[in-house]
Amino acid sequence: MEKTAIGIDIGGTNTVIGLTDEQGNILAETGLSTKKHESILYYTEDIIEAIRKLLEDTGNTKTLQGIGIGAPNGNYYTGSIENAPNLLWKGSIPFAKWLSDEFYLPAVLTNDANAGAMGEMIYGGAKQMKDFLFITLGTGVGSGIVSGGQLLYGHDGFAGEIGHVIVKKNGRKCNCGRRGCLETYASAGGMVKTAKELINKKGNNSSLKKYKQEELSSKIIYQEAKAGDKTALKVFDKTAKTLGLALANSAAYTSPEAIFIFGGPAKAGDLLLKPIKKYMERYILDVYKDKIKLLPSQLEDGKAAILGAAAMIWEKLKK
Amino acid sequence: MEKTAIGIDIGGTNTVIGLTDEQGNILAETGLSTKKHESILYYTEDIIEAIRKLLEDTGNTKTLQGIGIGAPNGNYYTGSIENAPNLLWKGSIPFAKWLSDEFYLPAVLTNDANAGAMGEMIYGGAKQMKDFLFITLGTGVGSGIVSGGQLLYGHDGFAGEIGHVIVKKNGRKCNCGRRGCLETYASAGGMVKTAKELINKKGNNSSLKKYKQEELSSKIIYQEAKAGDKTALKVFDKTAKTLGLALANSAAYTSPEAIFIFGGPAKAGDLLLKPIKKYMERYILDVYKDKIKLLPSQLEDGKAAILGAAAMIWEKLKK
Repeated sequence: MEKTAIGIDIGGTNTVIGLTDEQGNILAETGLSTKKHESILYYTEDIIEAIRKLLEDTGNTKTLQGIGIGAPNGNYYTGSIENAPNLLWKGSIPFAKWLSDEFYLPAVLTNDANAGAMGEMIYGGAKQMKDFLFITLGTGVGSGIVSGGQLLYGHDGFAGEIGHVIVKKNGRKCNCGRRGCLETYASAGGMVKTAKELINKKGNNSSLKKYKQEELSSKIIYQEAKAGDKTALKVFDKTAKTLGLALANSAAYTSPEAIFIFGGPAKAGDLLLKPIKKYMERYILDVYKDKIKLLPSQLEDGKAAILGAAAMIWEKLKK
Repeated sequence: MEKTAIGIDIGGTNTVIGLTDEQGNILAETGLSTKKHESILYYTEDIIEAIRKLLEDTGNTKTLQGIGIGAPNGNYYTGSIENAPNLLWKGSIPFAKWLSDEFYLPAVLTNDANAGAMGEMIYGGAKQMKDFLFITLGTGVGSGIVSGGQLLYGHDGFAGEIGHVIVKKNGRKCNCGRRGCLETYASAGGMVKTAKELINKKGNNSSLKKYKQEELSSKIIYQEAKAGDKTALKVFDKTAKTLGLALANSAAYTSPEAIFIFGGPAKAGDLLLKPIKKYMERYILDVYKDKIKLLPSQLEDGKAAILGAAAMIWEKLKK
């Protein structure tokens, strides 16, 4: 029988568990609520039970090679989830070790954006690439950096936090406790904040005003921008300008071949990617000009983190 | 006889050539003027002649294993010097190939900051480190990034241009043609510019005013700061603030264990390093706080680039 690996994507709201093969097929999938589990111990028990059921239901109890996990604030070196702002469980949680001990198999854990980058490299648009950035736009802004064919983990396992580069001194307040992080401008929530700032200006007559302000989302802004609303279009332009400069600056670190954009706001496609590219090229150092491809992620939404997490097992077995 | 490697440090003004052994000793050294050679061909002939003389004078005609070169805008992949703003020779110059063809030996070329980072890793303060940044403060601001034990070259050989991260939109004009690059604030010239801005303010009575403005240098600012001049001290504080924020942001890319500071202004020691550290810790993301060592380079001024360039040959032979 073919070898399999489990990939787990732990999100703030839900957890998805997929059984995968080495070709990047998801053979079966299951899930559970993350945020309904106040206790990490019960959560872990439920995860273990769900994995067992997935293996039994598909007749794969003997094919499993290991478990890969993508989690917020996941640390590759320690295999722990460490003080994730978007999870209920605080402290350092040795989640990979718990699963490894339970199944007598290797378990590897990293943050969700790193898992996505790994997925992009092995199964997505970066298959032939050794140097790229993977940027996730969603509740936050995450990133995974691949350089010279290696996913960068850094000294302590926390490399690749481009969302927390300060792009504006004394700028918007960030969940990390500081001010002016890229995330506060380029995340879905950042776009909504930009929209509110614009529609609350005197004389603004945007079609976004027909929504209650607490209902506004990046999706609504996208729909109104597509319908031609100037304010909604301006939100995209401002977001792209901030992100374009940040990506131009990012190029000066690892000189990537491509930058992949993944996640909710990235679904706006050219409406977001075109102006990002425009501003990136405007601000970029000559030596990188017109060299860096800006691409939408080639991974399906629900699959990126699962496949990437599982891919860490295949990579580990190769070594 | 012991094996040797030639290390060449091509600066805008002078070129230094050193004969080294694998332990990082410089056995002999020679040099010539870079800027007096308007023709790259005559320059190359003189370099070849100088190397031959060095080998003959020291009886090392048969020990040489290869030639490593650090040069402005040096591209590791192509072995070429590509349109260096601070050199007279334009276009793409296949300098490594020329030397390799002449001596029938491997020749490796990279930019001077990368060569310095390599030197720091093999012979300096980063001997036990796999993740660090090497920052050179001088006429410009250069950088070499080591992550996971690998010097990052990027897709095209131009990774590690932290000096050209834009830290201020519409800021000071940079030699690269853009505005607001870190280099325009944190280089020796950037410090002089900051000093001029301060002493030209109404009512300023700095001791820096006793110098002609065209004489001002980072060394003079250092001397006056040490003597207690408030304006000179403020120059250090402002420089450190800009650099501290830039390094805090840099941490979010590769999460280094240490950052090494090399070059002229770095000789000010604590006067510069202490405030850089203070501001870096102020602006840095929680997860990196109090983790990153800020250290002066452990390499001697004249030796860093020579040893680093030669080290590339030792590394190459290991592979």
